[in-house]
Amino acid sequence: MPFRLTILGSSSAIPVFDRMPTAQVLQSGESLSLIDCGEGTQVQLRKFGIRMQRIQNIFISHLHGDHFFGLVGLLSTLNLLGRTKGLTVYADPRLEGIVMEQMAVTETELHFPLRFVPLPEGFRGVIHEDKRTIVEAFPVSHRIPTFGFLFRERPRLRKVLAEKLSGVEVPVEAWDRIRAGEDFTDASGRVFPNAYITQPPPPPRSYAFVTDTLYDPSLTAFVHGADLLYHEATFLHEMEEVAREKFHATAHQAGLFARDAGVRQLLIGHFSARYRDLQPLLEEARAVFPFTQVGTEGTVIDIDRIG
Amino acid sequence: MPFRLTILGSSSAIPVFDRMPTAQVLQSGESLSLIDCGEGTQVQLRKFGIRMQRIQNIFISHLHGDHFFGLVGLLSTLNLLGRTKGLTVYADPRLEGIVMEQMAVTETELHFPLRFVPLPEGFRGVIHEDKRTIVEAFPVSHRIPTFGFLFRERPRLRKVLAEKLSGVEVPVEAWDRIRAGEDFTDASGRVFPNAYITQPPPPPRSYAFVTDTLYDPSLTAFVHGADLLYHEATFLHEMEEVAREKFHATAHQAGLFARDAGVRQLLIGHFSARYRDLQPLLEEARAVFPFTQVGTEGTVIDIDRIG
Repeated sequence: MPFRLTILGSSSAIPVFDRMPTAQVLQSGESLSLIDCGEGTQVQLRKFGIRMQRIQNIFISHLHGDHFFGLVGLLSTLNLLGRTKGLTVYADPRLEGIVMEQMAVTETELHFPLRFVPLPEGFRGVIHEDKRTIVEAFPVSHRIPTFGFLFRERPRLRKVLAEKLSGVEVPVEAWDRIRAGEDFTDASGRVFPNAYITQPPPPPRSYAFVTDTLYDPSLTAFVHGADLLYHEATFLHEMEEVAREKFHATAHQAGLFARDAGVRQLLIGHFSARYRDLQPLLEEARAVFPFTQVGTEGTVIDIDRIG
Repeated sequence: MPFRLTILGSSSAIPVFDRMPTAQVLQSGESLSLIDCGEGTQVQLRKFGIRMQRIQNIFISHLHGDHFFGLVGLLSTLNLLGRTKGLTVYADPRLEGIVMEQMAVTETELHFPLRFVPLPEGFRGVIHEDKRTIVEAFPVSHRIPTFGFLFRERPRLRKVLAEKLSGVEVPVEAWDRIRAGEDFTDASGRVFPNAYITQPPPPPRSYAFVTDTLYDPSLTAFVHGADLLYHEATFLHEMEEVAREKFHATAHQAGLFARDAGVRQLLIGHFSARYRDLQPLLEEARAVFPFTQVGTEGTVIDIDRIG
């Protein structure tokens, strides 16, 4: 099953050089989550062939315009295209009013259930669970209340090796216990050790999204060991003072954060309009953490293929 | 002096096939007016090389999202880029609250004077005048309060033919009267007929913007004789019933309107997402009014070069 990230926007506040404001799609199985929704996200979704009606959840990190100004347009388009399936938005509590006021003024009657889940300032913990995925939020260090998100697959059950139980009578009730890791004892008392009759499931995968934030090593605890970490790298380290004033991080700091968090791979983004060429940012992060990539519009990462 | 229209968006509500929601720029001399501001307008301005800080006035026809969802992002970017020069937005009175609430939530401190001029429902008359241009608004026939706009250059003064007054003493005070059309009488009582000593100025140019609206022939009075008319042509005429239900017009009706308004040229736009190929819409309008063009992203019309 895919666990796949697509970058729709890699720009910081001012969109330049064909870079668009922040938006990403995480596909987990058939379900799509949208992470942030800068202006133009609906056009980017179409451009990269992502079926927007499959989005089930939208996670908004914070209420700076480059992270949410595309939401009301996207919701309007989903509605015009006939959506009836529910959609949940996880965000600062004030976003609901902003969106619903615009729906009222434009006389938009939504034909699908739109649910807002408010993320209280400073909240840390699980905000969403479904059959396949668990999403946690944690506060990062920005000028206004801002959340990072950690997406984790649920651990899957072990795979039963049918050939090892050939000719053995296994009651239906026993199967789930075997898949959960128990040994199996047949009617005659013969014991089949779990390790002999099953194979471990693929390890659950995880994706951590950390932007907009100062370099804050205390946050590494929230994302420790993630398969893929997205961390903002708005500036080169020579601009570290400016970065700090604006509550942003440098590429060097993104590398440090990835290294200290023990992640498998780092993806950098949220690039300042001052950089046309992103290579120096990539090199700076790689000097600290070699497993780094630049995430630009259209970058797709199959998280199971990392490493 | 240029009087030049650039189309930034030709889509109706759902942006598809690289078409973006409505936005246009009218350049009159050095001054730029933005007409409507759908999502992504700031990116379109950059794409077509329009210097966004030169925009002085923004005219918003109505509060459907595809005509204003890009405004808050554009204003934020102008601010981040250091704008200090004032900007005036002419729109439905409710737009100010929507924009300013988002400015408050995003903790945006504007460094330039932003003025909203409310257009009361049903208003018709002059809404803006400057040295070069007069802008009138008039109500069109849409589901919610919607305005059309007519941009007219002020008549210019006549050009004095210096060679016809060679050797004649003309007091400074007399020049403006001559340029305004008066004959000149010199100290000796000799009369110089105005038509002999001056040349008429180029005729003032005009641009009429009419969207979103039903086909409403009564509106032709507001735009009679315009050099260029933009009229929506959301559907082919075979969809006339759907068009009417949605308070939109067909390409055939855009042609009728242009013919009845006696304009010099028609530009059609606001195309439904159902049409990938716009040629049938163009042909349908041309069958009624031959001087028709399709206005798509990047179309530039120098209004003095028409005809």
